[in-house]
Amino acid sequence: MVTVTVTGVSGLPIIHKGDDVAALIGARYRFSDGDILCIASTIYSKSKGYTKPLSAFIPTERALRLAKLNGEDPRFVQAVLDASADIIMEHPFILSELPFGHIGVRAGVDQSNIEDGNVIFLPPDPMKAADEVRKEIREISGRDVGVIITDTCGRSFRRGQTGNAIGWSGMVAIRDFRGDTDLFGHVLKITEEAMVDELAGFANFIMGESNNGVPAVVFHGCPAWTGHDNLYFTKNEDITRSLLKKEMISK
Amino acid sequence: MVTVTVTGVSGLPIIHKGDDVAALIGARYRFSDGDILCIASTIYSKSKGYTKPLSAFIPTERALRLAKLNGEDPRFVQAVLDASADIIMEHPFILSELPFGHIGVRAGVDQSNIEDGNVIFLPPDPMKAADEVRKEIREISGRDVGVIITDTCGRSFRRGQTGNAIGWSGMVAIRDFRGDTDLFGHVLKITEEAMVDELAGFANFIMGESNNGVPAVVFHGCPAWTGHDNLYFTKNEDITRSLLKKEMISK
Repeated sequence: MVTVTVTGVSGLPIIHKGDDVAALIGARYRFSDGDILCIASTIYSKSKGYTKPLSAFIPTERALRLAKLNGEDPRFVQAVLDASADIIMEHPFILSELPFGHIGVRAGVDQSNIEDGNVIFLPPDPMKAADEVRKEIREISGRDVGVIITDTCGRSFRRGQTGNAIGWSGMVAIRDFRGDTDLFGHVLKITEEAMVDELAGFANFIMGESNNGVPAVVFHGCPAWTGHDNLYFTKNEDITRSLLKKEMISK
Repeated sequence: MVTVTVTGVSGLPIIHKGDDVAALIGARYRFSDGDILCIASTIYSKSKGYTKPLSAFIPTERALRLAKLNGEDPRFVQAVLDASADIIMEHPFILSELPFGHIGVRAGVDQSNIEDGNVIFLPPDPMKAADEVRKEIREISGRDVGVIITDTCGRSFRRGQTGNAIGWSGMVAIRDFRGDTDLFGHVLKITEEAMVDELAGFANFIMGESNNGVPAVVFHGCPAWTGHDNLYFTKNEDITRSLLKKEMISK
């Protein structure tokens, strides 16, 4: 039987700029080769200083308009606009695409788990962030682990957030079953499984969001898989994105 | 530290109508109180005979039109239409709402992992199905376990399928953080987490889809949570649904 052990790494301090997240985790968990470490994007961003005080944002006219429309702080809305490569929906909340391809509510800009009057941005290059943490873990522990940077996201059709992967290293995002057959020898119609999101989702389950949050989770014993890294739809493929973009932006 | 052990229950035979899925799993896994068992909807449906030969479907005009549009067997399209309470999108694939509230591609009708020329339907009442399996596991093992019925689904914005919960028993679907504070004492903005989908997603990771599939996965050691069961948006809340319904149905 396949058995995977999933451990929430507890006892991490509140992270500040300059903290070495990989070293702090490595001091609390003994890694094995093949382990997969999921870390919340917030702690990575805080360690790198991807945060700003709200007072640093001077709202543009668009930010003022959307702040009024959605009942939010215009400086916060400006932070969201600054973080966005493309706005897909303006109301009832801003949905936008980030420069690295992820589509997220309020561009993933977070006012939780940081001192009042500050915001946390997603890492500008989460793939590089995952590579970097992976390399550091290898230097500290001598072990070859996979790393996933996670964010908490809403979705269509279903209430409630789940964890998604926004950066990964040491694995491919999608398991590709193309050419595989099922129990009866038919070639499978479901051919692509978003493995990194299924890991990030359960990591998020373990992490929690509140004051007893655990921002690092390790999976031990996951079977390996092959596939590809094309996790994000292209604009032409994405029916929902096209419709939202067409209808939900004021002219 | 929180540690959860996740086990794929292997060695299950191919399931046929009349098989006792709970007994087959119970013979291969020793449950503890508080374990959460995820089972693939396909094996539950097969055990209950929620399958039909394609030859049983006489395509209507709409099925013939959509079969041509999407390049599918008209009898299969008719099976999808029969299983749907509401069609949300017709092309490039049918997206529909099932009577129990789930929105799924091709109404979750499956041609994989069943003998040629047959289709598997989702259980008509997956909440009742989860209750029933839970009760049976309790009778067999004397243990109080949670049960989740899973399905593999696509999503907006991101390529690849993930596992979702379509029925659950012994837990609430959504963890509700309302009123909780974060590390700095702010009241949290992210207040609802779809716990059952994060479990179903990682169960799907362990299950796989192909001929080495493992249709039952047990989580041991999950912390409990409180919240509610309103996993599905109402029609008015669901922006994506409204837009798809408006634009993607031929007039």
